[in-house]
Amino acid sequence: MELWYTEKQTENFGITAKITRTFVSEKTDFQDLAMIDTIEFGRMLVLDGMVMTTIKDEFVYHEMVAHPALFTHPNPEKVLVVGGGDGGVIREVLKHPKVKKAVLVEIDGKVIEYSKKYLPEIAGELDNPRVEVIVNDGYMHIHDHKATYDVIMVDSTEPVGPAVELFTKGFYQGIYDALKDDGMFVAQTDNPWFKADLIKTVNRDVKEIFPIVRVYCANIPTYPSGLWTFTLGSKKYDPLQVDEAALPEISTKYYTPRLHKAAFVLPRFVEDLVK
Amino acid sequence: MELWYTEKQTENFGITAKITRTFVSEKTDFQDLAMIDTIEFGRMLVLDGMVMTTIKDEFVYHEMVAHPALFTHPNPEKVLVVGGGDGGVIREVLKHPKVKKAVLVEIDGKVIEYSKKYLPEIAGELDNPRVEVIVNDGYMHIHDHKATYDVIMVDSTEPVGPAVELFTKGFYQGIYDALKDDGMFVAQTDNPWFKADLIKTVNRDVKEIFPIVRVYCANIPTYPSGLWTFTLGSKKYDPLQVDEAALPEISTKYYTPRLHKAAFVLPRFVEDLVK
Repeated sequence: MELWYTEKQTENFGITAKITRTFVSEKTDFQDLAMIDTIEFGRMLVLDGMVMTTIKDEFVYHEMVAHPALFTHPNPEKVLVVGGGDGGVIREVLKHPKVKKAVLVEIDGKVIEYSKKYLPEIAGELDNPRVEVIVNDGYMHIHDHKATYDVIMVDSTEPVGPAVELFTKGFYQGIYDALKDDGMFVAQTDNPWFKADLIKTVNRDVKEIFPIVRVYCANIPTYPSGLWTFTLGSKKYDPLQVDEAALPEISTKYYTPRLHKAAFVLPRFVEDLVK
Repeated sequence: MELWYTEKQTENFGITAKITRTFVSEKTDFQDLAMIDTIEFGRMLVLDGMVMTTIKDEFVYHEMVAHPALFTHPNPEKVLVVGGGDGGVIREVLKHPKVKKAVLVEIDGKVIEYSKKYLPEIAGELDNPRVEVIVNDGYMHIHDHKATYDVIMVDSTEPVGPAVELFTKGFYQGIYDALKDDGMFVAQTDNPWFKADLIKTVNRDVKEIFPIVRVYCANIPTYPSGLWTFTLGSKKYDPLQVDEAALPEISTKYYTPRLHKAAFVLPRFVEDLVK
């Protein structure tokens, strides 16, 4: 018998992957959670019917959330990751020796539990002594911590289910307040092919709060359209002012110092969404 | 009844699109040809079970085949397109006023016929007086025309069916010979996620023939992995030496002068394939 996992990325378009095993398929307190094994992309975490991460392509998303911001901020000592219970962003954050403390606030403890068990390549640094893991609502955490963080990374699901509030202007204002005076944040902001309006709205909202707003892209095969956007809002430091030649090489598979600025050069139809 | 077109992009992974209509589904002298209408991507040309082009995302591929080379060559008067019977690359080529003549050599006349009928937005310039359309084997045409072209663009299917010979070293040597002394070519060279070996092989072969070889990427949602590579081989002019600030703005939806060099900055795992 052949089993295929099919994700309808829109009402009328999807991806389909042959699977060899289902490790977990359950309803947590917050969402449907599945951990499956696919032939093409390896083990895969699926939340509310959407691929969150896979062994084969996870490096793109996790590197591209973490490194552009951390190589822009000159001294990112205290970093917050909202969501990201699989631990992939945390793993990348810890590659920066300047980071003294990385706090992960994930609303769904089951994501952490199953990621540690089934995705150890991704979740393996969650027990690192530089990391504090908090199972809580990121929105609440943000509002309880004023002027606390150098960099905040929003590694959320798409704006359905528990992540809806993570795409509101109130949340971005909360992030602003939770950042130190020279802080910055980055959030995944979905894809420009099927969610153009979302990108426009987020960009407009963030621009009303942060003086420096930049959008960059990366290719993620298992995410809708294969092209993902990230929105960076900053109080002081501009990622486009970074001296690429001075960036150290770190161990990555997607991000490079050469790509630091190039990732911000957008196709015209994306440029038009955020100008 | 719901009808879905599913393309297995690999043995174990695919895309699926809801369709509303099948205009054509036939076996030509060279391949299986289907013209279908999808809700998400509009009308779609499918050859041998692989999406060739769709109304919604065709601009990416066609612009990114044409413009990096044509904005690198200082005087691209005579351009050859091998394959590309849908006419999309030709449409982009004609946006360059320096092009006096664009020759299209497509092996399968049915692709041209049905593209004109069902994809007029794409094929509409095939009757332009600056265009000569030849239904013939591109390999043969190349070998019959020495030192003839300024720029050659290989807009082939993937290396199965009639396009197999368009990925051989003999073909690249033929292209070299068909180019003038300062000519260049560009070819679509598949995706780095599922076809890494192909990209390595092509890169090695082209480097043995052309002094300047550059690889760039673009995001195409309906192509496998969403990340597509293009390989440019040049006798004299280097796309990375272009003065972007001097490039004119032309009407595009993906390519911009700002993207001209940024497209050549590769993710590390792609960089590693071609260094």
